[in-house]
Amino acid sequence: MIRAGIVGGTGYTGVELLRILASHSEVDVAVVTSRSDAGLRVDALYPSLRGSIDAIFSLPDEETLATCDVVFFATPNGTAMQMAEKLLARGVKVIDLSADFRIKNVKDWEKWYGMQHASPDLIAEAVYGLPEVNRAAIKTARLVACPGCYPTAVQLGFLPLIEQGLIDTDQLIADVKSGVSGAGRKAELATLMSETGESFKAYAVSGHRHLPEIRQGLEIAAGKSVGLTFVPHLTPMIRGIHATLYSQASADLQNIQTLYEKRYAQEHFVDVLPNGAHPDTRNVKGSNMCQIAVHQPQGGRTIVVLSVIDNLVKGAAGQAIQNMNLMFGLAEEHGLKIVALYP
Amino acid sequence: MIRAGIVGGTGYTGVELLRILASHSEVDVAVVTSRSDAGLRVDALYPSLRGSIDAIFSLPDEETLATCDVVFFATPNGTAMQMAEKLLARGVKVIDLSADFRIKNVKDWEKWYGMQHASPDLIAEAVYGLPEVNRAAIKTARLVACPGCYPTAVQLGFLPLIEQGLIDTDQLIADVKSGVSGAGRKAELATLMSETGESFKAYAVSGHRHLPEIRQGLEIAAGKSVGLTFVPHLTPMIRGIHATLYSQASADLQNIQTLYEKRYAQEHFVDVLPNGAHPDTRNVKGSNMCQIAVHQPQGGRTIVVLSVIDNLVKGAAGQAIQNMNLMFGLAEEHGLKIVALYP
Amino acid sequence: MIRAGIVGGTGYTGVELLRILASHSEVDVAVVTSRSDAGLRVDALYPSLRGSIDAIFSLPDEETLATCDVVFFATPNGTAMQMAEKLLARGVKVIDLSADFRIKNVKDWEKWYGMQHASPDLIAEAVYGLPEVNRAAIKTARLVACPGCYPTAVQLGFLPLIEQGLIDTDQLIADVKSGVSGAGRKAELATLMSETGESFKAYAVSGHRHLPEIRQGLEIAAGKSVGLTFVPHLTPMIRGIHATLYSQASADLQNIQTLYEKRYAQEHFVDVLPNGAHPDTRNVKGSNMCQIAVHQPQGGRTIVVLSVIDNLVKGAAGQAIQNMNLMFGLAEEHGLKIVALYP
Amino acid sequence: MIRAGIVGGTGYTGVELLRILASHSEVDVAVVTSRSDAGLRVDALYPSLRGSIDAIFSLPDEETLATCDVVFFATPNGTAMQMAEKLLARGVKVIDLSADFRIKNVKDWEKWYGMQHASPDLIAEAVYGLPEVNRAAIKTARLVACPGCYPTAVQLGFLPLIEQGLIDTDQLIADVKSGVSGAGRKAELATLMSETGESFKAYAVSGHRHLPEIRQGLEIAAGKSVGLTFVPHLTPMIRGIHATLYSQASADLQNIQTLYEKRYAQEHFVDVLPNGAHPDTRNVKGSNMCQIAVHQPQGGRTIVVLSVIDNLVKGAAGQAIQNMNLMFGLAEEHGLKIVALYP
Repeated sequence: MIRAGIVGGTGYTGVELLRILASHSEVDVAVVTSRSDAGLRVDALYPSLRGSIDAIFSLPDEETLATCDVVFFATPNGTAMQMAEKLLARGVKVIDLSADFRIKNVKDWEKWYGMQHASPDLIAEAVYGLPEVNRAAIKTARLVACPGCYPTAVQLGFLPLIEQGLIDTDQLIADVKSGVSGAGRKAELATLMSETGESFKAYAVSGHRHLPEIRQGLEIAAGKSVGLTFVPHLTPMIRGIHATLYSQASADLQNIQTLYEKRYAQEHFVDVLPNGAHPDTRNVKGSNMCQIAVHQPQGGRTIVVLSVIDNLVKGAAGQAIQNMNLMFGLAEEHGLKIVALYP
Repeated sequence: MIRAGIVGGTGYTGVELLRILASHSEVDVAVVTSRSDAGLRVDALYPSLRGSIDAIFSLPDEETLATCDVVFFATPNGTAMQMAEKLLARGVKVIDLSADFRIKNVKDWEKWYGMQHASPDLIAEAVYGLPEVNRAAIKTARLVACPGCYPTAVQLGFLPLIEQGLIDTDQLIADVKSGVSGAGRKAELATLMSETGESFKAYAVSGHRHLPEIRQGLEIAAGKSVGLTFVPHLTPMIRGIHATLYSQASADLQNIQTLYEKRYAQEHFVDVLPNGAHPDTRNVKGSNMCQIAVHQPQGGRTIVVLSVIDNLVKGAAGQAIQNMNLMFGLAEEHGLKIVALYP
Repeated sequence: MIRAGIVGGTGYTGVELLRILASHSEVDVAVVTSRSDAGLRVDALYPSLRGSIDAIFSLPDEETLATCDVVFFATPNGTAMQMAEKLLARGVKVIDLSADFRIKNVKDWEKWYGMQHASPDLIAEAVYGLPEVNRAAIKTARLVACPGCYPTAVQLGFLPLIEQGLIDTDQLIADVKSGVSGAGRKAELATLMSETGESFKAYAVSGHRHLPEIRQGLEIAAGKSVGLTFVPHLTPMIRGIHATLYSQASADLQNIQTLYEKRYAQEHFVDVLPNGAHPDTRNVKGSNMCQIAVHQPQGGRTIVVLSVIDNLVKGAAGQAIQNMNLMFGLAEEHGLKIVALYP
Repeated sequence: MIRAGIVGGTGYTGVELLRILASHSEVDVAVVTSRSDAGLRVDALYPSLRGSIDAIFSLPDEETLATCDVVFFATPNGTAMQMAEKLLARGVKVIDLSADFRIKNVKDWEKWYGMQHASPDLIAEAVYGLPEVNRAAIKTARLVACPGCYPTAVQLGFLPLIEQGLIDTDQLIADVKSGVSGAGRKAELATLMSETGESFKAYAVSGHRHLPEIRQGLEIAAGKSVGLTFVPHLTPMIRGIHATLYSQASADLQNIQTLYEKRYAQEHFVDVLPNGAHPDTRNVKGSNMCQIAVHQPQGGRTIVVLSVIDNLVKGAAGQAIQNMNLMFGLAEEHGLKIVALYP
């Protein structure tokens, strides 16, 4: 059994880790920390976990966490970078669901996240936890930086075209729509039901923190710099991300459908839908799948890729557990064969 | 392996059976029928099942269904009663999710359902599939009539008080709220999102088909006739039932909380919340749990019981599988330890 | 022109006052105060008001407010009672949308609201602003206490039966469902979309602040004490209240439908639906109407009344303006003939 | 008083015409037709109109309609083209909310709408009813073809840039999101709440009927052919359209903000938000406004325009009444100064 700790167990990614790990036969959730709710039973805060998780929130404590084989950070940005080094030094593997180790360029990170990085030396070692790109490195990593939710949906959608050099990478457009759980479990006016229900809007058009992360991933695939316009939108639903990706074919394309099917043929969690399909976020709700469809409207040069995930699963907790499975030599899909909740 | 067939696999209870059975290690879904979609892959209609269910809708055919160990009817009312007898005669166990065998009084059934019963002789044999009441009979049954969604939530909420004779059974009130998936997967104006979203209403106040079913169950528990007012409401959400139950204590009550905890102490799928709690339908979404809380506002004689289920799981497909587990000698909770999807 | 001030213009009842007053031909909104947003244009906070309201939030200031003919308090409880006396002394009429002057029994008020009343002498003078009951008194009032949203829906639903002495007033049950805007515009976890969307729950079953207010109104109508169980519920929608009211007929009732139609025949804002109807909150969304239907299921002694309002209009801002019209000798419906927004 | 008729009064655009016209002081709604509901009171079908509209659905009849000054067609495509000629011949002005007269190229229309045009001669005469482009022609028109909902939001968003020749019109991208009321009031599986609630998807990526209409409008403005990729999406809300428009600046742009403000300075119903704003569909809910914001992310060449409308108002009924006001010499905003319903 893998002894797991979760730092920051009171947010949506924390409780989603608990939901999935409750059914994972190789993991024992030994420690769940929360500064605000220490002493409280986990299932008192989350009655959905009654009967499944028998744990009490504790204060985050290095000694206790060091008894774990792996520690997940489901914390706000800026926490994992304070604690990761000490845990790694004591032989604990660290899986960070926050943004602390995602960006390789420290200055870039510090600009977008507005704070000084506490552990810049670890950035180089951290492996970006997108298994469909970095599987081999993840298997041997001590520290994995899980991708953001938007970056997961956008990269999986664009990668096949970029890796094959088939599109003009100067003018990529990612128009992405997210459910409100992506904003986290924080008391804020902007995410009240009265403020977000029955309404739709774009936000952060001038620049969102996931922009440099997506660009970094696409540039690695392209082997050169790319031009990306990324517009996130808030959708009146709780879970789900839908990325609509636009690019211009740089040459005559024969069969994009086949290209995508081949690229992801061996992937457990990327599912290329039949030609002409329109993925619906409901079909991945609660599951770790990314469903993708590719289109060339009216046979023109514009390629439209549609990519959907559940932001809390493949965009956060599920992908983190997928990484854990790889790091501990388990089958990658172990505990993750969850059928989406429809309707 | 249990070889299972599903008649009427295109409705919400059908696809919910498929979702849960896909992860049930002792069941092989061998046959899924649909008159309207025969020939189509199941996962073409329900992309949420891609990778989990490898089946093709077939026409309902006695020969094929007779090869199954158990057949679930997830059909509109009036279908199971046409086919059950033949399947039973060939040794197939039948679990009916429709209303065909729920009401013991044939005339009553025919009045409320507006058709002649095709198989009145089987009604007596059919076991009402509420395991918390009929567990022993279910284990040896050939034919199980699964309770309706409203009746499940209301009966589990009222039973402890009625069984102990603690309330006035002449004036029971069940004010119950349901998500729209209870109306089924049918093209109807009334359940369009534009008609039901962001709005709330009661319906069928003059009389709903679940009224005689609930009354029958409560009368068996009471050992006498009961007076029940049942008002169903349509709530702008997809899944979930919340029953608010009102009754008058017929004597000084010492500790209702303990009464409920004892009554359901051995039950896997009925969870009595701590004193003062307010169950939330979200905490049972996708799970087979019924969560219950009991209140005596201002210490008066009025007892308020709150009871929540997922109408498609404990109110339909989950309870059907719970019954199947009992009928086949499996652990009652096998394949049903599903953690609710929160948020 | 009536010169109007609004204290607390940043909450949902404040902005709803602004929406309606923007189209009221006899009112000039001269002052809108907000401690948190003073100096900001009102339409910068509420872009829905661009082109309709040309005002800037100011700090609440007695001198400025004293220039108004009427001041609306759309503030949290505890504010109006601090300022009302001074404004009244300067000849300003005061319409309070908060709870400060609703309860005649000061001790009762202080118990339920958890603070000492700052202006107990004014309580007796304050007129409870339910025009369907207190029209004459409102016309000459200096200080009107607008009813709460739940109390409006429940009283209008119960009054005809109680006034005529037709029901047993010892066992009244009000099962009421509200949209989330009733919780106000405050940054709180409990009303995040991720917490309230797609879910339904009861709350405050042990006792809600609107209980004594409803009881007070019903007792005045009954001329004696009444027994009331009031259970509020949170519904996953923004606007709307649906009250389902249960009572026992104390005698053979001939025609409740006619009773209701006669009681409200002269009322502009109470609409008794045809026999057998089920009012839907959507049909009063944005309007000042209360729609009511009455039922006697299966011809029994239990009477079920269904009463719906928009909690922000007839349950708050609309009713306040209805009161203002009466206080200033305008037609009661002036500026309030708003057609509900359907779908 | 203008005597108005509405053909097809049972759809969402029909009832929205009724909602707005009920408060329009210069219009008397004399005739409301419906084949399916003839003989029924309008407010029996739409209780939101009780007290506002006193009419009975009648069968569509030329004689009766000919008594009107203006007839609105709120019908499915293919109906207005059958009746318009006769009504025009009898001196009735016709405002068509369907697509029958929107496309100037008959062959194009017939290809996209899959039927033969019944009245091709009238197409040339019909004026495309986008007042912000065609005001003068609308004033003298006998027959106005109201724009579709998507085309309204997209054209108003793109026009200032295209009219000034500031962008590359070969690669326009319109990523547009609509509420479900755009699908109309039809019993269809795809728009059930259980199918569209809490989910998001694109549809008709290969080609949507509004594509040729949008392209036609943009080409007139550009004076040349344009390349447009249009991807519509279904959003889990009832009302609202949000267009996110992408284009490439063809030259250094000085001040797009000023360009937009100037272009729409005299327009009542197009509101350019301050620099950096993100329009939210809630802020135009129920109103006839189009709110627009312009962005140049990271100062690059990609211009992002955000444009929101209520699909049933500025995208249908409101714009139709705006056209009617122009055709009858009324103030363009008469009866249309409706404040959006927030929250």
